[in-house]
This record gives sequence, C-alpha cells and structure tokens, in this order.
Amino acid sequence: MAWERKLMRTVRVRNENKVGTLARLLTAIAEVGGSTGTIELLSETSQSVIRDITVYADDAAHMDKIIEAMRANPGTRILEIRDEVLELHQKGKIAIRSRYPVDSVMVMRRIYTPGVAEVALKIADNPDLARLYTSISHFVAIVTDGSAVLGLGDIGPLAAMPVMEGKAMLMESLVGLSGMPILLNTKDPDEIVRTVTNIAPTFSAIQLEDISAPRCFEIEERLQALLDIPVMHDDQHGTAVVVTAALMVIARRMTIDLSRVRIGQIGLGAAGNAIGKMLIHLYGNPVLGADLSEEALARFEKIGGRRSTLEEIMRTCDIVIAATGVPGLIQPQMVQPGQIILALSNPNPEIEPSAALAAGARFAADGKAINNVLGFPGIFRGAVDAYARRITREMLIAAARTLADLTPEGEIVPNALDKNVHRAVARAVAETALRQGIARAEYVPYVD
Amino acid sequence: MAWERKLMRTVRVRNENKVGTLARLLTAIAEVGGSTGTIELLSETSQSVIRDITVYADDAAHMDKIIEAMRANPGTRILEIRDEVLELHQKGKIAIRSRYPVDSVMVMRRIYTPGVAEVALKIADNPDLARLYTSISHFVAIVTDGSAVLGLGDIGPLAAMPVMEGKAMLMESLVGLSGMPILLNTKDPDEIVRTVTNIAPTFSAIQLEDISAPRCFEIEERLQALLDIPVMHDDQHGTAVVVTAALMVIARRMTIDLSRVRIGQIGLGAAGNAIGKMLIHLYGNPVLGADLSEEALARFEKIGGRRSTLEEIMRTCDIVIAATGVPGLIQPQMVQPGQIILALSNPNPEIEPSAALAAGARFAADGKAINNVLGFPGIFRGAVDAYARRITREMLIAAARTLADLTPEGEIVPNALDKNVHRAVARAVAETALRQGIARAEYVPYVD
Repeated sequence: MAWERKLMRTVRVRNENKVGTLARLLTAIAEVGGSTGTIELLSETSQSVIRDITVYADDAAHMDKIIEAMRANPGTRILEIRDEVLELHQKGKIAIRSRYPVDSVMVMRRIYTPGVAEVALKIADNPDLARLYTSISHFVAIVTDGSAVLGLGDIGPLAAMPVMEGKAMLMESLVGLSGMPILLNTKDPDEIVRTVTNIAPTFSAIQLEDISAPRCFEIEERLQALLDIPVMHDDQHGTAVVVTAALMVIARRMTIDLSRVRIGQIGLGAAGNAIGKMLIHLYGNPVLGADLSEEALARFEKIGGRRSTLEEIMRTCDIVIAATGVPGLIQPQMVQPGQIILALSNPNPEIEPSAALAAGARFAADGKAINNVLGFPGIFRGAVDAYARRITREMLIAAARTLADLTPEGEIVPNALDKNVHRAVARAVAETALRQGIARAEYVPYVD
Repeated sequence: MAWERKLMRTVRVRNENKVGTLARLLTAIAEVGGSTGTIELLSETSQSVIRDITVYADDAAHMDKIIEAMRANPGTRILEIRDEVLELHQKGKIAIRSRYPVDSVMVMRRIYTPGVAEVALKIADNPDLARLYTSISHFVAIVTDGSAVLGLGDIGPLAAMPVMEGKAMLMESLVGLSGMPILLNTKDPDEIVRTVTNIAPTFSAIQLEDISAPRCFEIEERLQALLDIPVMHDDQHGTAVVVTAALMVIARRMTIDLSRVRIGQIGLGAAGNAIGKMLIHLYGNPVLGADLSEEALARFEKIGGRRSTLEEIMRTCDIVIAATGVPGLIQPQMVQPGQIILALSNPNPEIEPSAALAAGARFAADGKAINNVLGFPGIFRGAVDAYARRITREMLIAAARTLADLTPEGEIVPNALDKNVHRAVARAVAETALRQGIARAEYVPYVD
C-alpha cells in the first residue's frame, strides 16, 4: 500500500503498568499490518501508563482493524482516537501576515497614505528598488495545475493545495521565504506560460510543482526564456540534486569513481530525465536510459543519454536508478551481484531495498530515504538572495555537493530539518551565481 | 501639494526646558509650510526635553527647508533625522508564514507526506472541502496592474506593490484575511480576465485595486460572470459604501430626506459612477451626473442617472459629490447657500471644505475624511465567511448602513482602526448574503 496514502491517527491508550503490556500492544498492531510513529508517554502511575500512539493504516477499513486489535489487547484501554492530521489542516496551514502591527494612525500613515507614496515613487523611478522596499524580495510562487501530485496523480489544483501549503511551510520554516501557492485552472501549456508570465512581477522566483511530463519540460523552458527571475520545476531539478548528492555520498563511501562506472536510468519522466542529465554532465559518462515512451527516449538522447532497455540496464550497469512509478518493476532475478540500486518511485519502489540486497545488490535505497525537501528551500533562497536571473546547472551541482559534504557518517543524505544544511546550500548556490556573473546583487546571506 | 505625495521624517530634538520652546519650534515649522504628526516625549530633565517629532513636507527641498527652520530655532538642537517610512518598508511589509512550527519529523509527516495525502484525497473527492482544509478559505487576491495608484496615476505594478502590501496589512490586522498582492504584467482587459480566471482557484475572493477606468468596469463585470467567488473593484464599490455611509450620517444629523433632495455627482469615473449608482438605487432619485467623457455619461445614463453639467449641478443640487481628480474645479462663486459638498478628489479636493463653507455651503468635507479602509476589509470578510458567490448591491448597502449606525456623534464615519466596526460590517454583509440565498455556508462570524 502507498506510503503517501497512509492514514494516520493518534490513539490515546491507558495500559496496565505491567512489564510487556506495551510490547504486546505493538505486536498486536503489527500482526494486523499496522505501523506506529511517535509513542509519547503522557503520565505514569503505579497502576497505569497513559500514552499517545500514532498509528498508520492503509485505509479506513484497515484502521478499524488496527483499532480493534488494540482494543482487544489485554490490559489496554483506548481513551481517545484523534485525527490530528485533519485538525492541523483545518483552515489551512499558512497565512499572509503583517510584519508588524497596525495599531495606530501613525503606523497607518506610514504603511499606507501618505507614507507609502514616497516608497511607490522611489520604485517608479528605479524599479530595482522593489527588491529593497517590497515583499517581492521574499515571495516565491509555488505553481501547480495539480496534474502529478505526490503518488496520487492528476487530482486537480484544489486537492493539490494541502501539498503546496506543505511546501510553503517548509520554505518559511527552513529558509524564511514566502512561498505562495498558485493553483492553476488550466493544464494548457500556452495558458500556463501566459498566466505565470502575467503575474511574475509579484515574485522573486517561480517554483513549478507537480506538473506532469512532458508538459513540465516545455513550460519550464518557455517560462525561463521569458522571465529574468529563476524558474525551477522542483520535481525535475530538486530531485536530481538530492539523488546526485546521495550518489556522491555512496560513491565516496564505497570508493567508486562515478566517471568510470556504467550508470543506468530506468524511467525518463520529469525526475529520471533530470537525474540522467545531471549525471551525464557531472561524470562525462553517457548514462543509459530506458522508457516505454519513444518521445522520452528521443529527449534523453538529445541531452547526451544513450538509448537502452530495462533488461540491458539491469544486466550491464553498475549503478541503476529507477524512477518509473511502476512498483515491483525490477524482479530480484534481474539484480546483478554488486549492483547499486536506487529504486525511487513513490509510493512503492521498483524493488524493495531488502529484496535487492537479498538478490546480491551491494547497496539499495528507495524514495523515502531521498527527500526533495533537502533541495528546493536552499536552492531558491540562494538564487533569490543573489537576485539571480536563473538557476544554472552549476548552481544545482553546488547544492548537490553541499548536501553530500554535510551528510553524516552512515547516512546517504543530511537531516532535512537542519536549518544549517539549508543555509549552507543557499550560500553555495548564491556564490555560484555570483561567480557565474548572473547575480544582480551582492549576496547577503540569509540569517534567521 | 498632494497629501499622498508628502514626505515624512521623524526628527529627534533636544529643547531647552523653558516655557514656549516647543511652541516656537512648531511655529517655525508652520511658517515654512511644514506640518507635524505625532510628537512623542522621550525624556525630560530640569535642563532639557527630548522629543521625536514627525514632520511632513511636500518634497525633499521643502523637507530641507523645514529641517533648517528647526535647526535655527533658539533652544532647539536636532539629534537625529530618521526616515522611518522607508525603514518600515524594507524587505516588504507582509510575509507568508506557517500557522504552526515545523520542528519535528512528526509535524513534517502530518503537514507533508504521508499525512497530507489523506487531506488531498478528501478534497479530490469533494472539492468543497478545500474551504475547510486549506488556506484558500482566507486567501484574497489583491490584483492590480498599477494603472491608477492613489493620486499617483499609472506608476506600474512594481511601484504599486507597497500600496497593495498596505491593503494586505489592513486586511490581516482588521479582519484576519490573507490578502495576497498579485501584480499584473499586462494592462489588456482580455489578458487580465484570463490571468485572474486561471489563478482563481487559489482564492476565496478577488479584490481589484487601482485599475484605471473604463477598463475597470469591464474587467470586474467579466470576471464576476466567469467566477463563482466574489470579485470587487474596491475603488468603485468600497468608495461608494463609505461615501454613502457618510451621506447617511450627514442626512440623519441634518434631518435631510435623501429621497427628496437633488443629488449631483461630478466626475463619473470608477468612484463617481459607483457612488451615483448606489444612491440612485437607495433613494430612487435620478442622480445628476457630469463628466467630460461622452462614454462616461452614456454609462451613467444606462444605470439610471441623468446627464447634466458641472454648472447645472452646482446651480441646482442640494448635495454635490465630486470625484474628478481635478483640484480646484469648483469655484467658490459656484457654491449655492445651504449646499452639502463632498469634494473627494485626492490628493487635492475640487474645493477646500473651508472655502466651500465660507462660500455658503451648509456642510463640506474632502477625501481625507472618508477613508476606503472602512469598507473593503469587512465587506470581504463577510462575503468570504458566508462563502458567497458574489458581492451584491444589498450586501454593500448593508455595509454602508452598518458604518452609518456605528459613526460616533460629531463624526461622519467611524474609526477605521476599530476592529469592532469591521466585524460588524462583516456580519451585516454575511447575513445579507444568507438572506439573499447566495451564501453556500453557515455563517461563522470571524473572531480574532
């Protein structure tokens, strides 16, 4: 069952304070296929222990079964079942706030008439001052048509909003940018390009999000050609940055020279194409690519990839990256001894890492381990702070190298909630923009 | 000189602690034509008094002159001159913020994957739930092309941003809505309608702002026909609501029956046309209208107005409302004894209230006294809370009546910073929507 589709509930239980009660309860949950998140101890007496246990289920019926199993556990009493996810989403997760209170006529005169006119006229004289005197300096549009959301597919723009708000929360919390979801009522590339171009003065950068291939390629390219602010489709380049960083870490740990091994990319959609492109550029190897779509294969050849097949890649490549959206595509008997396999498809990977390892792989990971959240916040913060005209490949590579450098021993990527990681990515991205001469401002590092 | 264009500085002065020093200083400022805002006492010893004095000047040269006069005042020493307006505007006045902190993997799982998928799927099943589970419920677009900003005219969208941010601050501070400026890179009505329609799913309502006539009429009408969320051009209807409220207060105080007096509207642009329209509907009188544009006159006739001239209106009307943008248009000798004159043009009125009164008017006011801030926050809050499909004339009239009812003795409008006023407007607007059957939700009054 899809990880993205899991239900989550917080169950408050009172257990008898006897050795083994909790273990028995967790066993009961596991036996019906449930899994658990945080287990919080709330209170303990000599008689009983009260805990909040977060449980995950595949669907509503499964959740009922888990709750039933918990209820049936000797010594356990369920006190409450809370849907904290829905509670958290009520009325949305973001808001537009004043940066200081409007509590007197004096403040009103300063922020509004007559004070505001002086600022407006300054900007009319010199439009560059908009970056200094307005919130454009930290506004980033998070644009979606809802056509390729998480593992859920084309669920439309309204249903995509909770996801866009999640991105905005992460942008604000991790790097202080104001991410503004823009939900599009159209899937037509011409209309999307036109609409985003028309509202672009509002923003410092445009993040394209969850727009399906192949439209995403054309839309990104055309928008970037029209606008002099960075435009980045996160599903392509954010993913490529994080996957490349993970590969750098793996190669370092296993002393593999990535320029001398054979790399195969299975699935040449938004993510796969961008991953292949970055690796080809970085390591000079013609990455082998496989896809069912002739159009995708042709596109991949154009960027320097080599047309191949699933079978050839599995038979001949040292490193296999899969981003196909097809669970179980890679059969264990296809795995070659010593292969490194990143099966990235969410919700379910092309092959479970455990199965790949059992079949002889040297290393295997899935998409849960490689989180996009590591990429976009720092990349955008750096590009915006440098007032860069676009996000170049070199800026993306600088981001990947920074992530690789900051990955702790034993991990393949850094902790996504560590602000220092995002700040370091932003700095590397901005400095690269300055070096490349596409920045328009002195870089002032973002500080909380 | 334009009030909207005034420069504002905060000057910190140390005065000798002698009777009359401050009075002499203020006289010196007045003598060179400067005016003062807040005067804050910072410290006082037996020797000296330190104060922050906010001074307004027409332009930079005038400010220099005022500062010079202050410096020359015996017993005064200038300690510091601060440009607090520019300081307040640095990096903008609004931001998009998370509604709670993202500080653990648990929170990330709830707001992002996997938790968010449950919410996304619920909305995919039932799009109406977007109002319950996303920030769409409080997002209002503040859309401008920068073509008619304050008294400054067509200064473009970037220069309009500080003004839009001011509106957003007021929306948040006064009624808790998230006002999102949307700056348009086009002035073409077709493009504007198309663009706003394409991004409309993001918002609960659309506020059109500072878009010049006659495009504003067409744009508002076409957008409202296409969208099932409220679309309101504030310069038209917000202004009409506040002016109508002021007229209600004046009529009540002077026991005038507005349905039996002759009303003239000079200037039939965005504001004038909307004011006339509302008064015609409310009082059944064919308001007389004057404008230099044949198109504007024809439009006014279509809504039930009567074509007239400046001269006829001044000669025959009991109540004259002017919104022409032409300072000094009304000569004192044109004023009839007992006339009520609202000369609304900002920055400078068609006739100064003092001059109108001296020429025999019974009552006179200008645009500074009648502030739009009283209208749009409560109107949008009420419409959004009722999930209304549009903002009807009846909802606007309910807003005007509420403002009139809440106006304190001796004033012509309520205090714009009083949140209770805005809450009352919101309630009246929402209840009217419910009564008219255009609401789609139970009305839940907004509480801080």
